[in-house]
Amino acid sequence: MKVGSECGYCILHRGHKIIQRSTNDEKKRVKAMTALLHMLGEHYKPDTVPSYIGAERCRLLKEITGCQDPYADLKTKSNTQALEILPRMTQYVDKQPPAKRLYAALKVACIGNVIEFDVPGHNADIQEALKGLEESFHIDDSDKLKKFIKKDTKALLLTDNAGEIAFDTLIVRELRRLGAHVTVAVKAGPSLNDALMEDAEAVGMTKEADQVITTGADAIGVNLAETSEEFNTHFHGSDIIIAKGMANWETLTEIPAPCPLMYLFRTKCEPVARAVAAPTNVNIAKLVPKGWKL
Amino acid sequence: MKVGSECGYCILHRGHKIIQRSTNDEKKRVKAMTALLHMLGEHYKPDTVPSYIGAERCRLLKEITGCQDPYADLKTKSNTQALEILPRMTQYVDKQPPAKRLYAALKVACIGNVIEFDVPGHNADIQEALKGLEESFHIDDSDKLKKFIKKDTKALLLTDNAGEIAFDTLIVRELRRLGAHVTVAVKAGPSLNDALMEDAEAVGMTKEADQVITTGADAIGVNLAETSEEFNTHFHGSDIIIAKGMANWETLTEIPAPCPLMYLFRTKCEPVARAVAAPTNVNIAKLVPKGWKL
Repeated sequence: MKVGSECGYCILHRGHKIIQRSTNDEKKRVKAMTALLHMLGEHYKPDTVPSYIGAERCRLLKEITGCQDPYADLKTKSNTQALEILPRMTQYVDKQPPAKRLYAALKVACIGNVIEFDVPGHNADIQEALKGLEESFHIDDSDKLKKFIKKDTKALLLTDNAGEIAFDTLIVRELRRLGAHVTVAVKAGPSLNDALMEDAEAVGMTKEADQVITTGADAIGVNLAETSEEFNTHFHGSDIIIAKGMANWETLTEIPAPCPLMYLFRTKCEPVARAVAAPTNVNIAKLVPKGWKL
Repeated sequence: MKVGSECGYCILHRGHKIIQRSTNDEKKRVKAMTALLHMLGEHYKPDTVPSYIGAERCRLLKEITGCQDPYADLKTKSNTQALEILPRMTQYVDKQPPAKRLYAALKVACIGNVIEFDVPGHNADIQEALKGLEESFHIDDSDKLKKFIKKDTKALLLTDNAGEIAFDTLIVRELRRLGAHVTVAVKAGPSLNDALMEDAEAVGMTKEADQVITTGADAIGVNLAETSEEFNTHFHGSDIIIAKGMANWETLTEIPAPCPLMYLFRTKCEPVARAVAAPTNVNIAKLVPKGWKL
């Protein structure tokens, strides 16, 4: 997906928040803002992929401010909060008829995608969002997804944020119940509040999944030029991929899907909502066939 | 005044809003955002004056979007609303003891400075702000100002925003009552919601002041490299200047004051508040002596 006009603003808005979270030293803040605007001035163009420059922004600000993980506290809090809610959500999935359990797990995990901070105009309140649990998906390919899940299906789940990843365990549980072998990928280093291996451990994902790997990169979304050989092998060798969150949509829609791929996310901004032809603040479960790109 | 770390963000935030107000054409919006980020990437530096690049932003976006005056409607509405409130404010000033009338007029006009749009986190609601009419100035040099106003004193009032300029007529009235000859300057062309000659006419300023001139520039604040010879003659030939709003503070603190100069504004953002050593959302009436600069 290419940038919308709002992306330049949003990327800087989040950069501004990151700078404020990273240092109280005003000179360092001005230096960071100067470098960020310079980078955006060079790289924001009509054919830019927003998450690519979003990841660049996070790296640049780490380097200048010295703060490696400005969302560390918020990620820990998100995990704790999600784990408090998880038993209720597990019950919710378990009480569904067997045919609706995967659907329910997808829904909970999709709503969990609201846990993202500093997006202009976005409310990250998961308790509030869960009030809409009975709202259907705006795009609902959950039945199509189910047809791809059989015994020994190799499934790859690309996670998005900390906190949210607790709810992703519900998807993994259902996929494995249906016989799939599930690999879960987290990020290799901090980028915004994206889940890391420590988050996968904190919420029990490392016990739920067959294995948890990292993308090999400290970037939001997936940029195959940056991800590790291990990750790329899984990416190209899976039977089905579930990609959570907007950054995965932004980056993976740039390349042909290596297998059937479900985009599972909440539309939290106008450009992504436009690109997927949906309103903002709705739940998306869009399955694209192998070879599909935007 | 030089940029704070927040200025890069704010200037782009307002640019984003201007783009949205100026055109619905997404391609044109992306083109405008690209050019804006490029310009900021080149010109935002630790020693940049925020209003200089703010003015550059407005010019650039005019050129690309073709919209010459994105705040035209809001300016008209602000004038109308201010004129509705003005009789009550005139009464408020008139009921003061003579010694307090100038002070009261300065206060009303200062609170009128809240009428500014798209400043991150700022509330432009004048009715709400006027509830604080009895709050004192955080920096109050009104008594000092009064000592400079005598018969035939040449006073220059640099206005800021449309709407607000209606309340500025109260200052002009008091200065003239004290015998001063008052020249009022508005902007020569649109920049944000800054008052133009048509606004001065709409609110009766052209009748209240001895004369109304323009700065000769379509820029927020005053940049003497851009202003007209007529304006510069008044600027350098006055006995006292009252400069309204943050952009005048940002730009005029870069040069020695040509005469005693009162900065009259509301602190609507952190960098300006820090620079004047005050909290945000307070009223400032700071008089600086001839020759003073930041």
